[in-house]
Formats: sequence, C-alpha cells, structure tokens
Amino acid sequence: MKKLLLTATALTMLGAVANEGMWQPHQLPAIAKDLKKAGLKLNPKDLTNLTEFPMGAIVSLGGCTASFVSDKGLVVTNHHCAYGSIQYNSTEDKNLLDDGFLAKEFNQELPAAPGSRIYVTEDIRNVTAQITADLSDKMSGEDRYAQIDQQSKKLVAECESDKAYRCSVVNFHGGLEYYLFKQMTIRDVRLVHAPAKSIGKYGGDIDNWMWPRHTGDYAFYRAYVGPDGKPADFSEDNVPFEPKHHLKVNAKGVADGDYIMVLGYPGSTNRYRTSGEVDFTFNQSYPLSKELMGSLIDTIYANSAEGSDARIKYESTLAGLANYEKNRGSMMESYHKGTTQERKDALDKALRHWVSKDKTRQQKYGTAIEQLDALIQQSQQTSKRDTLLGYTNYVGQMMSSAARLHRLAVEKQKDDMDRERGYQERDMKGFEESMKRIDRRFDAKVETAMVFNMLNRYAQLPKAQRVPAIDAFFGIQDGYKPEQLQAKLSNMYSTTKLTESDVRLEWMNKSVEDFEASDDPFIQYAVQTYEARQALEKAGKKESGDFAAVRPKYMEAIIAYNKSQNQPIYADANSTLRVTFGNVKGYSPKDGLYAVPFTTLEGITQKDTGVWPFNSPKSQLDLIAQKKYGKYFDKTVGSVPVNFLGTLDITGGNSGSPTLNAKAELVGLVFDGVYESIIGDWDYDPSLNRSIHVDARYMLWVMQYVDGADNLIKEMDVIE
Amino acid sequence: MKKLLLTATALTMLGAVANEGMWQPHQLPAIAKDLKKAGLKLNPKDLTNLTEFPMGAIVSLGGCTASFVSDKGLVVTNHHCAYGSIQYNSTEDKNLLDDGFLAKEFNQELPAAPGSRIYVTEDIRNVTAQITADLSDKMSGEDRYAQIDQQSKKLVAECESDKAYRCSVVNFHGGLEYYLFKQMTIRDVRLVHAPAKSIGKYGGDIDNWMWPRHTGDYAFYRAYVGPDGKPADFSEDNVPFEPKHHLKVNAKGVADGDYIMVLGYPGSTNRYRTSGEVDFTFNQSYPLSKELMGSLIDTIYANSAEGSDARIKYESTLAGLANYEKNRGSMMESYHKGTTQERKDALDKALRHWVSKDKTRQQKYGTAIEQLDALIQQSQQTSKRDTLLGYTNYVGQMMSSAARLHRLAVEKQKDDMDRERGYQERDMKGFEESMKRIDRRFDAKVETAMVFNMLNRYAQLPKAQRVPAIDAFFGIQDGYKPEQLQAKLSNMYSTTKLTESDVRLEWMNKSVEDFEASDDPFIQYAVQTYEARQALEKAGKKESGDFAAVRPKYMEAIIAYNKSQNQPIYADANSTLRVTFGNVKGYSPKDGLYAVPFTTLEGITQKDTGVWPFNSPKSQLDLIAQKKYGKYFDKTVGSVPVNFLGTLDITGGNSGSPTLNAKAELVGLVFDGVYESIIGDWDYDPSLNRSIHVDARYMLWVMQYVDGADNLIKEMDVIE
Repeated sequence: MKKLLLTATALTMLGAVANEGMWQPHQLPAIAKDLKKAGLKLNPKDLTNLTEFPMGAIVSLGGCTASFVSDKGLVVTNHHCAYGSIQYNSTEDKNLLDDGFLAKEFNQELPAAPGSRIYVTEDIRNVTAQITADLSDKMSGEDRYAQIDQQSKKLVAECESDKAYRCSVVNFHGGLEYYLFKQMTIRDVRLVHAPAKSIGKYGGDIDNWMWPRHTGDYAFYRAYVGPDGKPADFSEDNVPFEPKHHLKVNAKGVADGDYIMVLGYPGSTNRYRTSGEVDFTFNQSYPLSKELMGSLIDTIYANSAEGSDARIKYESTLAGLANYEKNRGSMMESYHKGTTQERKDALDKALRHWVSKDKTRQQKYGTAIEQLDALIQQSQQTSKRDTLLGYTNYVGQMMSSAARLHRLAVEKQKDDMDRERGYQERDMKGFEESMKRIDRRFDAKVETAMVFNMLNRYAQLPKAQRVPAIDAFFGIQDGYKPEQLQAKLSNMYSTTKLTESDVRLEWMNKSVEDFEASDDPFIQYAVQTYEARQALEKAGKKESGDFAAVRPKYMEAIIAYNKSQNQPIYADANSTLRVTFGNVKGYSPKDGLYAVPFTTLEGITQKDTGVWPFNSPKSQLDLIAQKKYGKYFDKTVGSVPVNFLGTLDITGGNSGSPTLNAKAELVGLVFDGVYESIIGDWDYDPSLNRSIHVDARYMLWVMQYVDGADNLIKEMDVIE
Repeated sequence: MKKLLLTATALTMLGAVANEGMWQPHQLPAIAKDLKKAGLKLNPKDLTNLTEFPMGAIVSLGGCTASFVSDKGLVVTNHHCAYGSIQYNSTEDKNLLDDGFLAKEFNQELPAAPGSRIYVTEDIRNVTAQITADLSDKMSGEDRYAQIDQQSKKLVAECESDKAYRCSVVNFHGGLEYYLFKQMTIRDVRLVHAPAKSIGKYGGDIDNWMWPRHTGDYAFYRAYVGPDGKPADFSEDNVPFEPKHHLKVNAKGVADGDYIMVLGYPGSTNRYRTSGEVDFTFNQSYPLSKELMGSLIDTIYANSAEGSDARIKYESTLAGLANYEKNRGSMMESYHKGTTQERKDALDKALRHWVSKDKTRQQKYGTAIEQLDALIQQSQQTSKRDTLLGYTNYVGQMMSSAARLHRLAVEKQKDDMDRERGYQERDMKGFEESMKRIDRRFDAKVETAMVFNMLNRYAQLPKAQRVPAIDAFFGIQDGYKPEQLQAKLSNMYSTTKLTESDVRLEWMNKSVEDFEASDDPFIQYAVQTYEARQALEKAGKKESGDFAAVRPKYMEAIIAYNKSQNQPIYADANSTLRVTFGNVKGYSPKDGLYAVPFTTLEGITQKDTGVWPFNSPKSQLDLIAQKKYGKYFDKTVGSVPVNFLGTLDITGGNSGSPTLNAKAELVGLVFDGVYESIIGDWDYDPSLNRSIHVDARYMLWVMQYVDGADNLIKEMDVIE
C-alpha cells in the first residue's frame, strides 16, 4: 500500500499534510481553517493564551506531559510517567506497582520520587533578537556558539531571579528563532492514585508500540505549594496548589471520526533533515546503534544470572535498550519498506531547484545550503567513533562519573555564570541526585563487560579516528590485544573506590589538585584524558556554532518555499509546548487487515493469560464477564472502550498529554504510537501515523469498579 | 469476544447455525429457504442432480476437489493439489515448481504423477437397507463388522463390474445411513498449467492457515480418455475427455457480502461427538499427538544435516508434521481460549435431558447412549498405546512395509472377495506404487532414530498396556534399557534388505512360507508379531462393530431432537460430495482488528522480501508497480483482488473446490481456512469460521499478464 503512495505524496509540499504538525500555540490562528475543518468548536485564539483555559491546565513533568483535572491541584498523566514514583514508594511488604495505590484522603498521598517536578509554563517569549543581535556570518563557530550560550544564560538568569521559576532558551528551526520559556516549578509533588501495573502497564513490553492495545496507562499526582501559594520543598504544612484552570473530564467519550487534539511537550523530531542526513541516519547511524544495543543486551544477559541482584539492577537498562532497539528496528523496517528516502530526495531536489531558479533566492540561501551539506558530511566522518565513545560513556558509569566530578572541580574555579551548563549552582541538586542514583543501576562485572564491548570496538577503528590520550590510557596501540584491555578494565574496577556513593559525593567538593593527586584509576582516567576530551567538546561546539550559522538559513528557505505554496511550517519538536489535532481513526497496518479505532474490555479477557504482562486483576476479569459496563458503555463498540487510535502527530514527551475533544474536554490520555508510526519522527505518513490513547471511559470505569476511587471521580468535574 | 458468545450460542441447537453445514446434495431442497436468503439465484433442486449442471462439473481428485472448466476436459484445482504432479515432472534442468509450467498446445501437456485420478461422481444411492438388513442388536461386534464389511464389498464389486467405475460404500451419521458412490475414474490425467511456486504457494508454510493471504493457489489438469470416450491408461492415442458440463468463469468476481458456495469433497469432521469425546480429544489425545509430532521434528533435525540428502528425503515428512503440529496447536489454543467444551457439555446435557424426559425416547435411545459412553471410555483405555504404535508404524516404513507384505501373502491365500480391504486385486496397483514410493522418503539413520523415539516411549507404558509379542521381539521387559532397544534397531536397519525397492517388490509375490523362512529382521518382526497384531486388529473391528450398533442411535436421537426444533442435520464430512453456502465476509481475529474480506496485489509487494516463501516473480512485482490491473481491477478494493474470505463450512478435501456465485459461475477456488477456524472440524463458530479463496480475477490476471496463458483463457468460458 505504502509504496503506492509515492506518486501521490511525492508531489505534496514540504509542509504539513493531513494531520501532520506539532504547532506552537501562537501559530493556531494561522491554521484556524484546518482546525475548524477537523472539528474544533473553540476559537483557535483561545488556545494561544498560556494562562487561560485550556492551556493553563497543561503542565510538563519534564519528559512527560500532564494536566490539572481539579481545582485542588489534581494532576493526571500516564502510569508510565509516574512509574518511578510508584516504584519509589514500594516496599517489600507493599508493592504499589503490583497492587496499585489509592489515597482516599489528602494525608494519605505519598511523596513522588526525588526530583519530581511539575512545570507550569506561564510565558513564552520570542528572544531571537537578543540572542542573535551580535552574531555575524563571519564569526568562527566557537565564537558563535559562545555568544549564543552566553546570551541564553543571561536571559535564563534574569528570568530565574524569581526562585519559583525555571527558565530556558530553546531554539526553533535549528536556530532561526529562539524562545525563552518561563515555567513555575512545583517541587512538592505527591502520588495520589495509580492502578495496578497489570492494568496501568497491561501488555508490558510485548504490547509496547503495538495495536491492538489494552493499557490503562493513567495515574494521578497532586501539586502542593507552601501556605503562601508559592512553590516550596516538601513539607507537611504545604497545601494543594489551586490552579486557575483545570480540564473537565467528558465521560461520554469520543467516536470514530471525532475531532481530538493533544496539548503537550513533544521531545524531538527530525522532519526537516536533508536527504543526505536521512540517508546517513538510516543506512549508517541507526544500523550501528541497533547493533550496539543488541550486543549490550547480550552482554548483560551473559554477565548476570536470571533473577540475580546484578540482573535486577540492569532491568531498567535492559528495558531501555530493548525499547530503543525495537524503535530503531521499526524505523529501519519502515524506511526500507517505504518511500521515505525517495520522497526526501524529491523534496530536497524540489527545494534546491526552487532556490536555484531565482537569483535573489540563490544569493540568500544558495551558499548556506552548500555549507550545510559540507558540514553534515564533515560531522559524519567521526560519527562511528563518537557513537562508540558515547555508548562507552552511557554504559561506563564509573568513567562518566569520574569525568563529570573532575569537570565539576574545574568549573568551580569559574564564576557561576561562566561555568559550563550542567555545572552551575542551579544544577547541583540534580548532579548530586545523579551521583546517588548510580548505586541502583550498577554492577561491576556487568559494567566491565559492557565497557569492554564498546572499547574493544573503538580499538578496532582506524588509528586516525581514535583519540591518542584515550588510546594511551587504555594501552590501545598497533597489535592491540583484547585480553590486555580486558585486564586493564578488570583491574580498574577492582581497585576503584568510586563505586561507593559516599566517595562519589565527597569528590563533588574536591579541588582539581585533589583529582590530579588521586590514584583512583577512574579519576586518573578523567585527569589524563581531560585535555583530549575537552578538545573533542570544543570541536563539537565549533561544529554546533557552524551549524547555527547555516541551518537557520536552510530552514528559512524551506519556510519561504512553503509560504510560496501557502503552507505554514511547524518547527521540529524540542520539548516545548505544542498542539496537534486530528481525528479518531483506524488504519490498515497491512493489506487485508484493518485496525479498528477502539478496543474493548472483552479484548482484555481475550489477551489474558494470567501471566505478566497479561495478568489482568481477577476482579476486573470478573466484572468484564458480568458485563458490568455501567454508564461507560458505548453502544457502537458494544462495550466499554479501552484504548483508541487517532491521527495525531505526537512523539516521546507527549506521554501523559490530555486528549481533548472539540470543546477541550478531556476524553483520554495519549500514551503511545503504533509500530508503523515510529518512523514518524522523521516522516509523517497520514495513512499509517496513529497515536494510541487510553479512553477516559476506561479510566473512569476502572477507577469506579475496580479500584473504588470514588473520591477522585467526585473531585473531578465529570461531564456525563 | 468469543467468551462472551457463550450465553448466546449455548442456547442454540445442535443443528446448523448461520452458514454452518456441509450438505448432501439431496438435502438442498429442504434448506431452500436458507439458500435463497443467502442469495442463491438457482433453484436448489438444480443442485441435486449429479449429472446435470453444475454438479456434473465437479470432480474429485481423491483428497482434493476440482472442476471442469471447458468442454475439452480442462480441470482447475489448487496448486497444492497438483503439487506432486508438478514436482514429478521437474528435472534438475527444468524445475517446474520454481518456474511454473504452461502447455501452449495439447501435445505439450505432461502426464500427472503416477496414480493421479479424476473421479466423476455419477450416482449416489442410499443402500442403508441392503447393508443393515441382516444386522441385529444382539450380534457380536465382530459379526456386525463382518456383516457390514461383506455387504459393502458385495455392493462395490457389483458396481465395479464396469471397469470404468470406482465404487465405495460410505457410512453417514456413524452408520445410521449408508450410501453407494459410483465414480467414473479417469486414469489419464495431464498437467496443463501451473504458476511458479512463488505465486502458487506464495507465503509457504508461514502463511499456511493465515490471513492476510496472497496465494495464487491454482493449477490446471486435463482429463484424457480413450478414443472410445472411455477411461483408459495413458496413451498417445487418448483424446481430451468431453464432459457434459463445465463451469463458466466469472471475471467480474464477487463483492463483500455476496452469496458464494463451494461444491466439493470435504474429508472429515467431528461435529457430533459426545462432550466426553471432545474432552478426551483436547485434553489427552491432541496434546499427546502434538508432543509426538514436535519430538519427531526434533529427531529429524538432529539426525540429518541441513541440505543433506537425508534431510531432503524428509522435507515432506517435516512439512506434514509441522502442518499437523500447527493444526493441533491451533485447535488446542482455540479450545482453551473458547467455550467449545462448555457448549458441548451444555448441548450433551440438553440432548440427554430431552431423551430422558419422554418414555418412548428413553426406551429408544437411552440404553444406546449409555452403551456409547461405555464404549468410548473403553476405547480411551488403550488410546496412548494405540497412538504410539500408530506413530511407530507411520515413521517406521520398514516395519509397516514388512507387515503389509507379509499380510499380502496371508490374504492372497483367500478368494479376492474375502480378502481384507487394501489387499484385493483392485488395490494391487496402489500397493505396488506405495512400495516403490518409499525410496524417496527413507533414510536409515533418520528412521532408526524416529522409531526408537516412539518405541522408547511405548516401552515405558505399564506392562498391562503393552503387547507381549512386540515386547518379546524388541527385548522390552522389566529393567528395560534404552541402549538395548537402540542396538536392536541399529542392527535391524543395518542387516535388512527391505530398504531396496526391488526386494520389496519381490516380496509381493512370495508365500507365507517364504516369509516364515526369511532371516530379514523386519520380515521376522512381521511374522513373529503377526498373531498379536491380528488380535489388536480384531479387537479394533469388534469395537468398530460395537460402535456401529450404538452410534447410529445416538445420531438418530440428535436428528430427532433437532427435528423437534425444526433444524435439519447435516452429516459429518466423510470425503463425499457436499455443498456449503454462505457469503463473502471478513471477521475480527481479535479485539481491535478486523480482517477485511479481500487482499490486493499491493499486499504482495508489501510482503515481498525476495526470499522464499515471499519471493514473488520480478515480472509480477513490476506489473504491480505499474498498476497494470487490466479488466480485473475492482473499484471497491482499488486493485486486483488476490484472495478473499467467506463464511463457508469447509475442511481438508475441499481444497481445489470451485467457489461459485449465486448463478453457479466460478469466482474462485477455496484453498484454506483461517487459523481461528481450524477447530471448525469440531465446532463451527460463525464469528470466526472463515474460508480462504483465491479470487478468479487474480488467477486470470496472473494467467494473462504474468504467464501469458491466453490459450487457456480463450479455451474457458470467461464472462466479463
């Protein structure tokens, strides 16, 4: 089917088609016609004001989205977004993941996992002028990077003078525009309710990215503030935050074809990469990552017995690797089956042709596009090495900790404003937490094997690609012998003290000299490779600065090209607030099959095996067998709808986002996309791109009948 | 979904619901109303006359069905039904399986595989009176079996006095009725056309029983007769048979919801077993067979290297075992997920209640039902041993050949009419062919390992269940040592001469004394265990005779029960001519998914990997890419339909049956059922039972564009 879309879609523009598009709120009036056509009943303008309804009800959890659903600060998000907090509050005697959790009273609510935050975006300001004022085409890449960095830090520091706020400067269109985001940061977050994992994560990793789906992926937090109404650290004296706006929950739900929209914080997409970048990614970069992830999974399995402490410590690493391996696998599968490359090629060609056929345009964009191509090619040269060192850093927590601790000592010698991002005072709490967290995910034998796996590959790169200081430290040279590297690593892990949490925390307060005098092998690694790694970082910043000179022009060309065809352009996702709209709609995953847009309670019984991840609670299975549908029954589907499909353009970070109907009432929560839509981060295909939502009716049904969460149903405004 | 059907379907009757039913032609007028309602445009009476249109066009291939599609004896059936003939005509230089085959002229047509026959049913006569005239309730089981056997043989012999015919007496409803089938037997069958395996068996074993499906499962034979128009052995002088009737091919095809019917020869079903039989089958018998088949597959793999001669010889055995293992697995899966047992229990209970609540009925059926239960229980006692010995016989071709050859010598001492079935003169040609065929499927090492696998299990049965003579021959006793059995078998296989085809054929003409004097270990096995095996056979016949006394009464009760509810009863499939009707229709294989009733050409491209079994010919892929649909384009599906789903009630033996529209024009060929319908042999579920058909439009499209079979398209009557 997909192959046949070629002729049709190759001719469409670079801009949004069908329900493609992650729109910035201020763009909505410009696409009012499309919104109305899809079925929106509100005035698009109403969606532009961040502190009014409904935008005022949307919050970020940092990595996930959530929304206020009561005037007492009740927040709904995905179960998988609250997973860490549920886990954090579990004990051997009381496993909240297995049993679920419900606070019947405010005072039974539990503190969320350390570091949990609720971010309420109160202002978004275009600061392009401030950031770019002193930039010039003639600057070196390093200078451009430094200038942007400095301006950003300045704006952030000003904005954060009120301690209640967290601010950030984010670039759009590769640096064509910069926006300053001001977010009130609620620091006292508490867990209110979560269904059992066998509902909230039903289907587990097997069903991840799959349809048909039957996951009750919802959970509730509550935001607390000090008695003065301002953000505060956890305290018994704190009171529920009273948001100015919250969403109503519509218990009548949606039907096939209905308008839906998702407001949230999508993380990252790559919709405007050049055809060369797409080619390199799918034919070089992704295959390499997929291979490395698969190999690391094997390494963990080979070095930790099933059920052992070591294995338990790596469960979440394993889940992450498996998740990404599946993700990359799906993207490569879609890429090779489909016409992504052909269409990217065609679009690139069309753009370049459009630029070249007009002198003014050629002058304005021509050189920049050429430079962009050259820069891309250059960055691809060291891609394999950078990937291998990146993975070494990811799996080698001792190496990366030592390097970060040493760097902290170096940065502390500077004024706070001049320090590298991540090493400023504002970052210290998170830094400390990250140092503590290692214990829960570290086993020396497993880590040694994983680091060896990566460095052994690195050692086999051509000498010119390798880093002399790293080679020297590990004894990598002509006639390299894996056994020697193996022995070196074993020795490092058996003599280091950095594996102890207290020791790592102590190093946070030591001087550069202390580091230089240490004989801890990982500290030595950090010190001896510091200059070399600094050089790599500097080269990276230079590259980044170089890109910042040409990528915006390339994007400007794309925007101009689309404007010439009356097509507005949305920016790639960058973890900022966006709106995506569309409709409830099924799709054909393959010839001869149609994925209908709703699953039902009976599908749970069908799937159930009694064994995780298909072990629905018996009480739920009984209720289904008794057809106890209550008022959540949907005549069309003949049952209570569990999950539904939509055409929305979402990605990671949108998890937990409320799914709203035409009147901005909550009808579900988005929590996943179908397998065929994973490549959507690069290429939205209207026939295959489907978001998966938990139906609010299923959430309410479980809350009422399975978990008896009447207090919360009563607290929310449920429209029946 | 299925679980919820319980309350609804438990209340339905034992009789036909929805499109359930494999009807004998003479029953059609009785269900005229249902046929009309489904959409039949012919008079149901027209379907009862075997020598008129359309019945006169339907033929059996023995194990498959086919139909005449021209007045020159052109016959269409499934590719998988002609597979043996295509293989038979392949050489190293010219692999017809890979390349396909097309005779452009009559004289290019190739002889089908030895033993290929086309059976034209000319008469079906109810002979219940003759068969049962001298039966009485007081007879012993042995006598009843012998009486039925003798009467049947007599009727067959009379009927076969004209050598052009092959006749058989078949029981219906477990012996409530007997019919004599008279079939003209065409012995000169030639291969006319088959697409490449990558079309005709596209998807291979992976797609077997699966939807979505894209298989061009069709092939053409031609029937030849002597110049006198009578069946004759192959001869250059033979001429194409001119059937009185043939089917027209409708190139406009069918649409979703259209009436369709299949006329054919379904092999075997078990729709009227008692709940106890169903329970035993699914909880004891099938699990055992599945385990044995899986274990035999492992044994073959462990004893033959990939690509070795030995492995090649067992490819078809492997395919058969895998096929049945999948079959049994599916049935067990459906059984355990669904409500078959609950419904069988409920229906059994309802029937018994209905019988018991009326004195006359209780008198008529009560005792028989009790006796049936007792007989069933008795037969289950030795079921495991019988299964193990059955498998030993199946995999141990040397043992079974020796036993059959020895038996032949024994039987030859009798008059032909008194001989055991299979050992009469009429069987000798087939007997000889089966002795020759062994070479192609035999490897001593593999067979030794498989026989050991089965006998080693047999040796571990309780002594009371074992057969002393078999134990004695193989040295199985208390303190049994597997190594000894292993050694015994190795010795047998290394010394026997029976592995040679010529030797086996020579033994066909030897006397009992010759057998007794032989020192061939397998001949010795046959001689030494003869009496014991005879005793088992006798006990089996007694049991069969006993069943023949009570099963018909049980069926009579079922029929009476259904009649009381105005429900006609169709008999279980028994390889005789049946009609099943219904509609083109999709289904929901699981909650959240819908199998649409048509697949399309584009689905082939989607599935194609270039590697068998998904290696469509390049010419076909090119035609699809070019959207060269021709007149076979269907607007609704937006392409040429490839396969479609129907609600028809079919089973093995129906393969190759023409799928007819409301006017009895050929619109496809049935070739499979979906995975969820495999349990249909026991239990037809209207929501899940779907037949899979190759669309006549796809067949014509491939013939015209891919294979250039214009001569055949021209020869057929194609309605456009």
